[in-house]
Amino acid sequence: MAIVGVTSVASGDGDKNPASPIYGVTIPDGHRKWELIAPALEHEPLNELRAVVGNQKAIDAYRAGTLPFPDGTVLVKLAWKHIQSPEFESALVPGAATTVQVMVKDSKKYAASGGWGFGRFIDGKPVDEAQHETCFACHESRVKARDYVFTRFAP
Amino acid sequence: MAIVGVTSVASGDGDKNPASPIYGVTIPDGHRKWELIAPALEHEPLNELRAVVGNQKAIDAYRAGTLPFPDGTVLVKLAWKHIQSPEFESALVPGAATTVQVMVKDSKKYAASGGWGFGRFIDGKPVDEAQHETCFACHESRVKARDYVFTRFAP
Repeated sequence: MAIVGVTSVASGDGDKNPASPIYGVTIPDGHRKWELIAPALEHEPLNELRAVVGNQKAIDAYRAGTLPFPDGTVLVKLAWKHIQSPEFESALVPGAATTVQVMVKDSKKYAASGGWGFGRFIDGKPVDEAQHETCFACHESRVKARDYVFTRFAP
Repeated sequence: MAIVGVTSVASGDGDKNPASPIYGVTIPDGHRKWELIAPALEHEPLNELRAVVGNQKAIDAYRAGTLPFPDGTVLVKLAWKHIQSPEFESALVPGAATTVQVMVKDSKKYAASGGWGFGRFIDGKPVDEAQHETCFACHESRVKARDYVFTRFAP
């Protein structure tokens, strides 16, 4: 069952990807192969390296500077604890995976949250409703002028 | 002119991609769309966020755990000065692009350097021969057991 049209069920094990509360967003199949938008680092308390990737609609909109993003845009933020590189003293590299965070644009379905549905997942499972209630408020307060999206395309 | 078979000329402006000294490696066309292998952060003095991407041969080898990497493997490291996110006080995000670094596997052509050709570019132009003479020595001394490749696939 694809709760949102642009997402899809997990491949391989026959199980469905569980959907986030409030929004019904799932982790999109094949997202690990999507094009990189930008890496980032989160300091304390998260201590994470991150990479945001996007589907083709997302990439096309970024490259064209299109705002708002079109319906069907999907952004996925991958995150890992950062660890000291064992081979290079000045580098931090990815350790264990932590969260996967997803934004799906559907201006009608998600009209009450700026056109975006949100999903935050740990080990493939969505976190609770209370956490999902915080997503839009933060995006709205900080990056409403960029269609609620933090990440810029890395040049 | 494609100096190395797996690379190609730049699109758009009709100019050829300049090749690195010693190795004749060029920046491969379309690499910005390649799949992410892993992000990283470099502390002082570079202060960079980085992302290594790879062509399909690279990705297939990483996913299968194949060592040594097969001929035709190409790895590209993108790098940007890291800057404070204007919208999120705990995050570092990409600023200006700095270097693009390329590794090309050709076990015959580059037999004297572990099968790898190296290219380091700033603003699309290769840095000098003296800098390129340092590439292999560092890779050999630190990561010879992983076919001279630092970056691990981010899980």
